Amino acid sequence: MELADYLERRRAAIEVALAEALPAPPACPPVIADAMRYSLLGGGKRLRPLLVLAACEAVVSADEAEALRLAMPAACALELIHTYSLIHDDLPAMDDDDLRRRRPTSHVVHGEGMAILAGDGLQAAAFALLARLPVSDGDPLLQTRKLRVLATVAEAAGAAGMVGGQALDLEADPSPRHDRARAGRGEPAPVDAERLADMHARKTGALIRASVTAGAIMGGAPPAALAALDRFAREIGLAFQIVDDVLDVEGASADLGKTPGKDAAAGKPTYVSLHGLVRSKALADECLVRADAALADPGLSGSQLPALARWVVERRT
Amino acid sequence: MELADYLERRRAAIEVALAEALPAPPACPPVIADAMRYSLLGGGKRLRPLLVLAACEAVVSADEAEALRLAMPAACALELIHTYSLIHDDLPAMDDDDLRRRRPTSHVVHGEGMAILAGDGLQAAAFALLARLPVSDGDPLLQTRKLRVLATVAEAAGAAGMVGGQALDLEADPSPRHDRARAGRGEPAPVDAERLADMHARKTGALIRASVTAGAIMGGAPPAALAALDRFAREIGLAFQIVDDVLDVEGASADLGKTPGKDAAAGKPTYVSLHGLVRSKALADECLVRADAALADPGLSGSQLPALARWVVERRT
Repeated sequence: MELADYLERRRAAIEVALAEALPAPPACPPVIADAMRYSLLGGGKRLRPLLVLAACEAVVSADEAEALRLAMPAACALELIHTYSLIHDDLPAMDDDDLRRRRPTSHVVHGEGMAILAGDGLQAAAFALLARLPVSDGDPLLQTRKLRVLATVAEAAGAAGMVGGQALDLEADPSPRHDRARAGRGEPAPVDAERLADMHARKTGALIRASVTAGAIMGGAPPAALAALDRFAREIGLAFQIVDDVLDVEGASADLGKTPGKDAAAGKPTYVSLHGLVRSKALADECLVRADAALADPGLSGSQLPALARWVVERRT
Repeated sequence: MELADYLERRRAAIEVALAEALPAPPACPPVIADAMRYSLLGGGKRLRPLLVLAACEAVVSADEAEALRLAMPAACALELIHTYSLIHDDLPAMDDDDLRRRRPTSHVVHGEGMAILAGDGLQAAAFALLARLPVSDGDPLLQTRKLRVLATVAEAAGAAGMVGGQALDLEADPSPRHDRARAGRGEPAPVDAERLADMHARKTGALIRASVTAGAIMGGAPPAALAALDRFAREIGLAFQIVDDVLDVEGASADLGKTPGKDAAAGKPTYVSLHGLVRSKALADECLVRADAALADPGLSGSQLPALARWVVERRT
């Protein structure tokens, strides 16, 4: 299947599953349901759920429908967590952004308090989804897989992963509103290439790796395939961030759906500010080569994963 | 065992387990580890973990040490979630409180952005704990229990439970900073006794019920005992909130460790504002009678649970 067709079909299935994944009235108050839906169902590339599904399909021995049934709850859970992190990152107390996915951010529409709660609710909903689904209670094999996925996702989303990356980002931000995050040291933490890589490995890399791993675990990947897929995921996580930094410089607001040039304006370090545009693009291409190589060994090159990796690097938004 | 001895022994074990439950450097950045530890290890009644342990001990057939081993991860997870909710509730965008557990709140010490992240990290850490521990991977019976506990806690913490309750609270708050949470309706949502009860059943009740249920599930409670324990937990959840409202009027800041009189000053509805002090105290006592009655039938009155319930109603802080 061509990537464009694959993306269209999988995205359609993901949108349906996401809409069903959220708590809704009367189980929960309308005011919080509305705020959660606004951000979750407001578009987006759906990269993380696509990676979950593609990784599962790459390793599973079952047919396509069964692979989707196995992996879709994890796919949705990863998108819920990603969405919650965007809502919180956009808050005035964090990156203070008012445009996301071409629409006003959550706190602009619902107020800061409700935006914080919408993020909190999305995180809880992600774990509820992972704990509840898919499968009959009794199957010990699938229960083991679910618990492994839960632990993987919870660690990737937490202080050792995504939240820790955002904390490093805050700590390095020279804006006066983050003075207290720097514990009175006054100066933002200095950022060299190593610290920048560590920050991004946590902030965006951890959840991308967890997406690939979650799909692979649900599909029953053996240890060698899991290790290879994790090498693959590290590379595309890094490539994703480098391309993000390039687009922040080169992209137009209309394409990006968020405010471009913000990082540079805020004096935040990026791959482009450290390495320049040309070298940054070359670094992203090198990631792609290593990502492809990681898949060759366990014979996973025939899956949709290499095309997804190329799409991550060549995207314009 | 006398309740005072029981509380002292269990609290000591809980403090040790909580200190070990958090991610720490080098796995996570020091700045976020510090913020999480500040709030988690800053005192507190530890009511929720105590309920988890006592509920497990009430139903388990194993010895005391085994009961603690089974239930302690869930006990810690519930306290992590409770602590994250306090950090977020205290934020300027929510209740705007600067004193909690006798110390400056998280955002006062670490700044708003880092406080939001500390809460986010604590929620993720709670689910990591529930997914990982205790027990050998292979035991299908305990895996089933863990997944049931995970689903129970995630739902209680989310939009249908705790987060939904806080959303209702925000929506009813007349403060101008919550205008957008009311979606431009201008007026705060009117609060009658029914809406107040629904808000508290979610905001504090859901997590208290989940605590009792989690302990009971880990201890292997049969369905009849689970149902009775849930009735018990509903009553003490309600009693807890009524007493909170009474203490907000009668309590001294030094005892409470937080700012008293805030709800009344903010024009927020409380049990005391709706029913008066005398009737509110009587309502709490009625909860206690029903809580005791719930335990009698399945023969759980010999556990520490009735004494814990009495402590909830008679507490001064």
